[in-house]
Amino acid sequence: MSEISHRKARSIIAKTLAKGREMNLKPLSVVVLDAGGHVKAFEREDGAAPGRFDIARGKAFGAVMLGMGGQAQMARAEQQAYFMAAVNGVYDGKVVPVPGGILVLDKKDAVIGAVGVTGDSSDNDQLAGMAGIEAAGLTGQP
Amino acid sequence: MSEISHRKARSIIAKTLAKGREMNLKPLSVVVLDAGGHVKAFEREDGAAPGRFDIARGKAFGAVMLGMGGQAQMARAEQQAYFMAAVNGVYDGKVVPVPGGILVLDKKDAVIGAVGVTGDSSDNDQLAGMAGIEAAGLTGQP
Amino acid sequence: MSEISHRKARSIIAKTLAKGREMNLKPLSVVVLDAGGHVKAFEREDGAAPGRFDIARGKAFGAVMLGMGGQAQMARAEQQAYFMAAVNGVYDGKVVPVPGGILVLDKKDAVIGAVGVTGDSSDNDQLAGMAGIEAAGLTGQP
Amino acid sequence: MSEISHRKARSIIAKTLAKGREMNLKPLSVVVLDAGGHVKAFEREDGAAPGRFDIARGKAFGAVMLGMGGQAQMARAEQQAYFMAAVNGVYDGKVVPVPGGILVLDKKDAVIGAVGVTGDSSDNDQLAGMAGIEAAGLTGQP
Repeated sequence: MSEISHRKARSIIAKTLAKGREMNLKPLSVVVLDAGGHVKAFEREDGAAPGRFDIARGKAFGAVMLGMGGQAQMARAEQQAYFMAAVNGVYDGKVVPVPGGILVLDKKDAVIGAVGVTGDSSDNDQLAGMAGIEAAGLTGQP
Repeated sequence: MSEISHRKARSIIAKTLAKGREMNLKPLSVVVLDAGGHVKAFEREDGAAPGRFDIARGKAFGAVMLGMGGQAQMARAEQQAYFMAAVNGVYDGKVVPVPGGILVLDKKDAVIGAVGVTGDSSDNDQLAGMAGIEAAGLTGQP
Repeated sequence: MSEISHRKARSIIAKTLAKGREMNLKPLSVVVLDAGGHVKAFEREDGAAPGRFDIARGKAFGAVMLGMGGQAQMARAEQQAYFMAAVNGVYDGKVVPVPGGILVLDKKDAVIGAVGVTGDSSDNDQLAGMAGIEAAGLTGQP
Repeated sequence: MSEISHRKARSIIAKTLAKGREMNLKPLSVVVLDAGGHVKAFEREDGAAPGRFDIARGKAFGAVMLGMGGQAQMARAEQQAYFMAAVNGVYDGKVVPVPGGILVLDKKDAVIGAVGVTGDSSDNDQLAGMAGIEAAGLTGQP
């Protein structure tokens, strides 16, 4: 299984932020986690609130730990709210199950990490993150 | 970016409490946090319950970390309840997203801290806090 | 049992800070807790590090919960290090057992709360706090 | 008081990693926190262990919250071991008081944030971090 390299991680972040500028979004914060859910890289744009690191990481962490992007987690919550609420408890409240948390897959469709984007609406966060992952030559699973 | 000075913090609290007396509110508790969410000053009036410090701080802390006053957080919760619930988990339950948590801005509209007021109804807490901030020469964002 | 009133709490803090200025100490942070260990009032001088609230409270909290000022706790730690280490565990690490945490007694020698001072050396923190308590007409037990 | 901008934060990290390559150090991990102790940017080099984010942040967080770089915290621990142990408890164990945690000051000597470096020996971590901060045009206080 390949990993998200330091260079790829920085590229994903740079391209996500570039997409945000292109879409004229509010200041974004973007984290990249490895396949074990551990922080690889992070950047918070000027003007973003101080707490955005935790939210970005919460989105990405939930994606890695569950093997489901934020969009998928939200759909699951609608079907079975009980399960998602319990999942959050299991992870000490550190999961933010909304769009913007995106699984990253390599060419063989193996999960190699996750990206978490926050700062604008969840849907726009997800749009920017998907663009960043794709521009870096990888596949995103929202 | 300017900071809330020790003197300004005490002035905000004094004026908030004075507004509370003028409005004949229940005993109030008022906290002032700096732009990083750390406690700058706090006062709890006689007759206020012992746990009010944590509630006041929870209101102000949520405001700083998210860059949104309590009124705005409540509106966000109505649009996307899921997100605000998750945010609370990310911050170990230390966020109280209701009116009374108010961002404090300087003349250039930069966030320099937050005020948290509790003791009466949330709406009255917010009224008193906004009066305190304005009387101290700053701008409040509820 | 009498309590530390809002007015008395502010007076203790004001006089402690005045002593600090007189002794030319580094910026101080002073908290007053009630007899149940809950925050009554707090002030952090300009230039004091953001984490000082937690340290001040840790000093005062240990004093109230154990019924021993910081000086006494340190002496106990020297006699029985095991006990003080365990005590800290019991309170989730929230006890700072060093000089600067001072029990406050009323005229009948009943504990009505505690003061926590931090910012300079522990010994100077304690000197300033004792002066503040005494100037407010109460008795301090270090 | 100025802040560490997004650009400056990335520059500090890039220059710290460059110094590490120049000194042929083990893979480094570098975090930049703002003056409130919140994560601004982070990068973990390939080959660095997954847990390095928390260590880097622990070094920088302690520096910000106490207003003392890691070197200074270690010296304080030698004078008053008891105090530093208690401080760690107050911050839920999230403080790593060793060299590599460096306060960042602007031209007016105001603290604008902190850098945490980990991966090689603490002394080398500190050397790399000081070089990164200085190359970015700021002052480091170890």
